[in-house]
Amino acid sequence: MSKIEINEVAPRDGLQIESSFIETEDKIRLINALAQTGVKRIEASSFTSPKAIPNLRDAAEVIRTIDRRPGVLITALVPNQKGCERALDCGVDEINMVMSASESHSRVNLRMTPEQSLTQLEGITGMLKGTGVFGNASISTAFGCPFEGFLPETQVLSVVDRLVGIGVDGITLCDTTGMANPAQVKRMCESVLMAWPEVPFTLHFHNTRGMGLANALAAWEAGIRRFDASLGGLGGCPYAPGATGNVCTEDLVHMFEQMNIDTGVHLDLLLEASAMLPELVGHDVPGQILKAGKADRKYAMPANS
Amino acid sequence: MSKIEINEVAPRDGLQIESSFIETEDKIRLINALAQTGVKRIEASSFTSPKAIPNLRDAAEVIRTIDRRPGVLITALVPNQKGCERALDCGVDEINMVMSASESHSRVNLRMTPEQSLTQLEGITGMLKGTGVFGNASISTAFGCPFEGFLPETQVLSVVDRLVGIGVDGITLCDTTGMANPAQVKRMCESVLMAWPEVPFTLHFHNTRGMGLANALAAWEAGIRRFDASLGGLGGCPYAPGATGNVCTEDLVHMFEQMNIDTGVHLDLLLEASAMLPELVGHDVPGQILKAGKADRKYAMPANS
Repeated sequence: MSKIEINEVAPRDGLQIESSFIETEDKIRLINALAQTGVKRIEASSFTSPKAIPNLRDAAEVIRTIDRRPGVLITALVPNQKGCERALDCGVDEINMVMSASESHSRVNLRMTPEQSLTQLEGITGMLKGTGVFGNASISTAFGCPFEGFLPETQVLSVVDRLVGIGVDGITLCDTTGMANPAQVKRMCESVLMAWPEVPFTLHFHNTRGMGLANALAAWEAGIRRFDASLGGLGGCPYAPGATGNVCTEDLVHMFEQMNIDTGVHLDLLLEASAMLPELVGHDVPGQILKAGKADRKYAMPANS
Repeated sequence: MSKIEINEVAPRDGLQIESSFIETEDKIRLINALAQTGVKRIEASSFTSPKAIPNLRDAAEVIRTIDRRPGVLITALVPNQKGCERALDCGVDEINMVMSASESHSRVNLRMTPEQSLTQLEGITGMLKGTGVFGNASISTAFGCPFEGFLPETQVLSVVDRLVGIGVDGITLCDTTGMANPAQVKRMCESVLMAWPEVPFTLHFHNTRGMGLANALAAWEAGIRRFDASLGGLGGCPYAPGATGNVCTEDLVHMFEQMNIDTGVHLDLLLEASAMLPELVGHDVPGQILKAGKADRKYAMPANS
């Protein structure tokens, strides 16, 4: 049994904001490589409108074509019932619904209010009844909104409460623009785990302000065992150009493995997958371990010493 | 009273490995800017041989010329008694001695054994008696050696014990090449604070493997209140080209301030100082907050929302 479960989001959260379309066969190659690393779950694509996210317009083809390995769950983001139908048609194991905790981000990003999102998510959750497909709900801006600033914790807890009421199977708290700090993360995680001990909570961090791993550590200390992470640190924040993106999978796995916390992931295979990225996306990626090597890397002494 | 003390090391640890000499007047301008930010201490230069570290050959001129502000301590690295004499002549408030916990790193970096270093440090400590100048000792490779790997904690504790016996006033545990992880840091910090509660311990982290802030958090949780950090994340590890360097002062201060832990530092002034760096050193620097803005930064809603 792994102590920590990694939900790999690069194929969705990472590739969606790349400046150019990544070829379908490259996406499939990347996901197949990821499926061999031991990550528990791969968010493979998003069933949104091709106009909204053209980079992921090949969601159905990608998910139908990738290798399906026992023990590796394939999930996809769905914005509405139509997207959910398409995802179910492709045989996903899980779906990931999304809403924002803050009114402004909800309006800008989803063109609806959080209340309208909840109605939408209730419809999607209804569709999943009896299918055996796990319905997860991701709450964006749970640790702060780029337009409104920090939200009261009660506002986020109230969204969690509504989602639990709707009957979602799991909830992800997202630090969408990298605003969270470890003290805030610890408080929030303790609150949700105390109030809903039966709900599987996942934490989704960005490294926008360098605190990605510190926040993951704080969440782990509070009892969280499921983390979203993105290979190579792919992904980003449209509001902070030049800043780093999602917390990097191999850096997160490396930290926990160094702490003797089992992630179930074979780090060397993960690094091999990450090494594919610069060619795939056409630029350098923020991950550190691929550049620096693992902490137990030993160097030869200089010849003149 | 600040809850945390920042020891700013960019003028020494950062500038020493830059590929070109930073003009003396630029160094002075940088240190004077840093002295206004509220950092407790600035490691302003190093009194090593100009042949060994040509970038810091102007140590005496720099330290004699910078503004001396009440409450801001000026420290300098000294490798030996001759260096200490030169530092004392310039009127430093503190000196920072250095040795390695591991034999191999000691041989490569200092051309002597740890035992010879201890003798050297005893001589320097003796020179400081009655001067009122604080004598700090930094222990390199305390969390791992690039040639030997991880050291047994007892080996590091034994070095600390010897240094306390010699009579140094404070000790810095250095993660020289960014090998430390939060679990190891927590154990080590708890051990030293338990064994030597009267010794002021400082922690020195590198962000080589992305764990800089997570390690600082772990050290803080263990009770550490003094941190080395480098403006902009200047500095680096000669063994890991392309990897990030020292933990970045403004990112560290930002994290702690966001956690409502007082650092005594005015973050906006620190960011102004950091903004000088790219021109000063001729390249981009790793710090995140200057790129992303502070976590409480708010954005205007897009016009069409």
